[in-house]
Amino acid sequence: MERNVVVRNIPRADPAVIARLGSAGVATVYEAQGRIGLLGPDIAPIQSGARIAGSAVTVESHPGDNIMIHAAVEMVGPGDVLVVAVTGPSIYAMVGDLLATSLRAHGCIGLVVDAGIRDSAELIEMAFPVWSRTIHAQGTVKAHPGSVNVAVSISGAAVDPGDVVVADDDGVVVVRRADAVAVLEATEQRLATEEATRARLESGELGVDFYGLRARLHDMGVEYLDTRPTSAES
Amino acid sequence: MERNVVVRNIPRADPAVIARLGSAGVATVYEAQGRIGLLGPDIAPIQSGARIAGSAVTVESHPGDNIMIHAAVEMVGPGDVLVVAVTGPSIYAMVGDLLATSLRAHGCIGLVVDAGIRDSAELIEMAFPVWSRTIHAQGTVKAHPGSVNVAVSISGAAVDPGDVVVADDDGVVVVRRADAVAVLEATEQRLATEEATRARLESGELGVDFYGLRARLHDMGVEYLDTRPTSAES
Amino acid sequence: MERNVVVRNIPRADPAVIARLGSAGVATVYEAQGRIGLLGPDIAPIQSGARIAGSAVTVESHPGDNIMIHAAVEMVGPGDVLVVAVTGPSIYAMVGDLLATSLRAHGCIGLVVDAGIRDSAELIEMAFPVWSRTIHAQGTVKAHPGSVNVAVSISGAAVDPGDVVVADDDGVVVVRRADAVAVLEATEQRLATEEATRARLESGELGVDFYGLRARLHDMGVEYLDTRPTSAES
Amino acid sequence: MERNVVVRNIPRADPAVIARLGSAGVATVYEAQGRIGLLGPDIAPIQSGARIAGSAVTVESHPGDNIMIHAAVEMVGPGDVLVVAVTGPSIYAMVGDLLATSLRAHGCIGLVVDAGIRDSAELIEMAFPVWSRTIHAQGTVKAHPGSVNVAVSISGAAVDPGDVVVADDDGVVVVRRADAVAVLEATEQRLATEEATRARLESGELGVDFYGLRARLHDMGVEYLDTRPTSAES
Amino acid sequence: MERNVVVRNIPRADPAVIARLGSAGVATVYEAQGRIGLLGPDIAPIQSGARIAGSAVTVESHPGDNIMIHAAVEMVGPGDVLVVAVTGPSIYAMVGDLLATSLRAHGCIGLVVDAGIRDSAELIEMAFPVWSRTIHAQGTVKAHPGSVNVAVSISGAAVDPGDVVVADDDGVVVVRRADAVAVLEATEQRLATEEATRARLESGELGVDFYGLRARLHDMGVEYLDTRPTSAES
Amino acid sequence: MERNVVVRNIPRADPAVIARLGSAGVATVYEAQGRIGLLGPDIAPIQSGARIAGSAVTVESHPGDNIMIHAAVEMVGPGDVLVVAVTGPSIYAMVGDLLATSLRAHGCIGLVVDAGIRDSAELIEMAFPVWSRTIHAQGTVKAHPGSVNVAVSISGAAVDPGDVVVADDDGVVVVRRADAVAVLEATEQRLATEEATRARLESGELGVDFYGLRARLHDMGVEYLDTRPTSAES
Repeated sequence: MERNVVVRNIPRADPAVIARLGSAGVATVYEAQGRIGLLGPDIAPIQSGARIAGSAVTVESHPGDNIMIHAAVEMVGPGDVLVVAVTGPSIYAMVGDLLATSLRAHGCIGLVVDAGIRDSAELIEMAFPVWSRTIHAQGTVKAHPGSVNVAVSISGAAVDPGDVVVADDDGVVVVRRADAVAVLEATEQRLATEEATRARLESGELGVDFYGLRARLHDMGVEYLDTRPTSAES
Repeated sequence: MERNVVVRNIPRADPAVIARLGSAGVATVYEAQGRIGLLGPDIAPIQSGARIAGSAVTVESHPGDNIMIHAAVEMVGPGDVLVVAVTGPSIYAMVGDLLATSLRAHGCIGLVVDAGIRDSAELIEMAFPVWSRTIHAQGTVKAHPGSVNVAVSISGAAVDPGDVVVADDDGVVVVRRADAVAVLEATEQRLATEEATRARLESGELGVDFYGLRARLHDMGVEYLDTRPTSAES
Repeated sequence: MERNVVVRNIPRADPAVIARLGSAGVATVYEAQGRIGLLGPDIAPIQSGARIAGSAVTVESHPGDNIMIHAAVEMVGPGDVLVVAVTGPSIYAMVGDLLATSLRAHGCIGLVVDAGIRDSAELIEMAFPVWSRTIHAQGTVKAHPGSVNVAVSISGAAVDPGDVVVADDDGVVVVRRADAVAVLEATEQRLATEEATRARLESGELGVDFYGLRARLHDMGVEYLDTRPTSAES
Repeated sequence: MERNVVVRNIPRADPAVIARLGSAGVATVYEAQGRIGLLGPDIAPIQSGARIAGSAVTVESHPGDNIMIHAAVEMVGPGDVLVVAVTGPSIYAMVGDLLATSLRAHGCIGLVVDAGIRDSAELIEMAFPVWSRTIHAQGTVKAHPGSVNVAVSISGAAVDPGDVVVADDDGVVVVRRADAVAVLEATEQRLATEEATRARLESGELGVDFYGLRARLHDMGVEYLDTRPTSAES
Repeated sequence: MERNVVVRNIPRADPAVIARLGSAGVATVYEAQGRIGLLGPDIAPIQSGARIAGSAVTVESHPGDNIMIHAAVEMVGPGDVLVVAVTGPSIYAMVGDLLATSLRAHGCIGLVVDAGIRDSAELIEMAFPVWSRTIHAQGTVKAHPGSVNVAVSISGAAVDPGDVVVADDDGVVVVRRADAVAVLEATEQRLATEEATRARLESGELGVDFYGLRARLHDMGVEYLDTRPTSAES
Repeated sequence: MERNVVVRNIPRADPAVIARLGSAGVATVYEAQGRIGLLGPDIAPIQSGARIAGSAVTVESHPGDNIMIHAAVEMVGPGDVLVVAVTGPSIYAMVGDLLATSLRAHGCIGLVVDAGIRDSAELIEMAFPVWSRTIHAQGTVKAHPGSVNVAVSISGAAVDPGDVVVADDDGVVVVRRADAVAVLEATEQRLATEEATRARLESGELGVDFYGLRARLHDMGVEYLDTRPTSAES
């Protein structure tokens, strides 16, 4: 049956690739990699305006127990993002400002956690970005085993240790480590296209022309009328 | 059966009336028009501090499909608010920064949408105010017909094209176009009354005196006691 | 059966004790008093960055009716926090800027309410902090009796009039008046300990060493591995 | 501004058409009319196994107030379904067994209500089917005006008085009265097709063959493999 | 600060009074006692058709810990209902079929719990009725102190040990022990009135006449029309 | 990047092992395997009284698209359970009675799906058990690629093709195929223990004695009192 393990060494993607994924942001990376890897909107930022990308150090915790997060601190390196999954639904505060201080001291640049957090004002003040299920001060214990740096599943997304996690105001997306270079390439192509599109749309060009949607609307039976029909049904 | 139509021309209320409704804000307008037309709190602002009023250009979309929003851009004029209803529950991102850029280029001043949006940081940075069900990057398709400028229903409120939409940090309220002048009149009377009331309350006068509630409290059997009763029940 | 009463005089804790509890914040006070008295995360701040502590003036209201809040204004004194419980689930706006103006004129420093509020922009602008279930403009009536300064229950926490309410970005915690001094003592011990811990964690010391967790992890069967196991199961 | 009215006479669809729509059920009618008119899953049956169809007598109520339902009883005729919308979110019990007894005495065959109900055991025992937002005993008042037999919006669907309401274990769908005959025709075609399809599927034929999906899967890049790839990524 | 206690002896109401309250059901008792004491609809029956009344043996538990329920079994007597409150939100299974077997062996007739339960099929089969927040198999620990037979608060209702708990398909209502006789009297008067009302409504009499609502509707400005107005607004 | 694949052959556990796991039920298996593998309570049975166990055939679908379920039918064998994960939140009806008919024709004994289903009455009547997020008739398309028989994540649990899925009224639990024999052994030991425990509890023995909890309660500071303390605090 399931062993509980703490894995010391994990592979990581190229820091330059990670940084460029981060600057593209969640929505663009999610699109560029084929609309996969997105966490649900229930894992939301506690701050506004943060955008990070880093390598996932993963934690599988018992709900309401943060002992494995303490174990994970030792495994964190510069540029890592801690990703905490729980084995059952939970809104306990898994992390507060002390644990965040410890994570940061070891290089961690942010936290994604499928549970609650607390000391939210302090976390924002110390600019340690967090994406969590809720803000709630309810305290945890240190009594149940779990694992660090194993495959986890969080809010509908699978994460392996070393995968690239991108997070911003839109949520969190996971890029498989093996796909990072290819996804970056697709991302940068997409960014270039978006830039060109933005300029045309700003100038007033219409997406229905631009994307060739008029024919599709016609084929779907959408009719253009000068005024609303006078009959009862809309 | 239902036709899918895009209606080009809609009536609009007097821009001066719209502007004055906007400056009064959601709560006052909602009260002034007899406590109707309010959307539920599930459609919430993604930013704080925005307050807008405009004419509704309405969209009825298939969930997870934003082709009709592209069709709607062409129908938007200066000062309009896009109101997007869906034919089934959805948290897909119906609008991102590119579509917002296009809407703004045609004069649109804000968006009310019964679904998700993405690029939230960019939308806030470009000061394009949005009221939505959630923030979520999940992408849409362009495959199902819908309508533009038909009567829609969104979060419990009915909206006709050309109705006045007022939105701020408290949510969104819809004023029927035909009622706009009368509602404005009631709104401005209410504002004047509120101003006078505020001054009296600031000076320490009590609402129980001011609104004549002491007699009502007495009639309902509410007793005033100097200290808590010592018996077990409160 | 239940009488509806308005109680004029309530005991209060020592203002100096209240102030020091307030500066410690919700998470620390909640921990210091043995993890009790915390409201659920459904009662959340409408602003960010506020931290208050005060004596509870309690209101038991019929859902959708704010007449008892008007009655409560007269009972509020400087430094009090109004705590409004409802006898059934509700998202009506129980308080807006006028009532907040009146509360403040009588010394009230904040509001905790198990329902909605409105005029949220105005409340934030006037720096009157609020913890509520939702923001929603839906209006109330003044038609059903209730009580002021009786024992109430709100979001899982019991509150007696005169209890100390501490509220910040993490939520709301209630300290029994009779426990206030003892809880403060425990709180300040905890703060001192936290400060020392923070310094050690900032310097890179590990919580697993610091808190003596290595033995516990070992006893629970957690194994340390240098790399991920190659077998199928994680 | 909005008038509050009780409309005595409404048009209704042909009872034979209504009955045949009812026997087809919600999912089939919803599909047959082009995937519109479906209420959200938040309006759910309190019983299992009921399936009804009838003409909508509509009510627009203040939340927590059922006076307009009393007014509506007089307007109900044999075979009608009462559809109760509210002007704001609510979980009050709008109907209990007494009101259901009264509705039934006037011919009403069921209730769809965007709020709570109570006496659920008695309602099930008397076989009066109900689709509601929740079961909750919280009581209403009779203090706010509303309307009977006006256009309403409920859980994302618009309903006019006299529209056909079909409800079963899958939820509730609304067929516009003017569309009832055409929708019935499409429904019965669909039923016939479904029957044929069912027979073929029962015999083991595959939908991928039957619906011609193999080519589509191929075009979308889906590969068929004999065994799972051995590489790390799935 | 809070002591954790297990109280052996509690007062109970007269069994005959309890039984008659039980036969009246939740909605009637709730109304008869002035619309107080009702738990929110989030605490719902796992079975259908059960109706019980008994004396509350109360438990205050740490979330995810059921040791105090084990302690409570010894304090349960014939006809008691176990009422389990938690000090923080939780969906853990606090009770399964073994604990229910133990509770029943000591006379307990049902369970109200602000958390999850499991072995739901077995509980229904053994006819041990349960009202809970959810059904979920997630397991608990036995590691945190709590109390038995102290005042608790559950889903918005306060419960003292020995209070009368009535529960059925509509939910759960609490009658203060000291009020039980008076509430029973009011309940039986209400039942008599309801019976008479039911007969008149069954015969087709209208509530608008019966309750004298026509004048009220008129005073509120509700107009009766023979047909829908032809103008645009409803 | 992610390939979309349909895998034809998957390993399965021994049918005798699967059957015995099934007869033990969700709660017991979940406990026996160390409290892992449980889906959240949001995936709930649409029927009551069903209990199944089978080998997982997994599907990863785009939300609102069921083409991959059609592809999966061909891969289903006798005794399999279809497990459908989605790449984003969704309440669309992914399966109705036709698709269930087809699944059954190929040996499938039940469905676990992180989305909606429809034709619920028909599914119950044909005794095809389903665990889903909701019941909702909203229709899907067949337009987006996905995979069959890859590793998926559903409601917090990871599932590999060929894992054992046990589902009953308490929810759904997943046993890793490689662990099935060991988990069965632990399960049957647990069943035997439970049987002995049940007999002792039925006879009135107390869990506090039986499980040796009295010492633990004492150590945690829980005091036994004959009557409630008379002071104000409980």
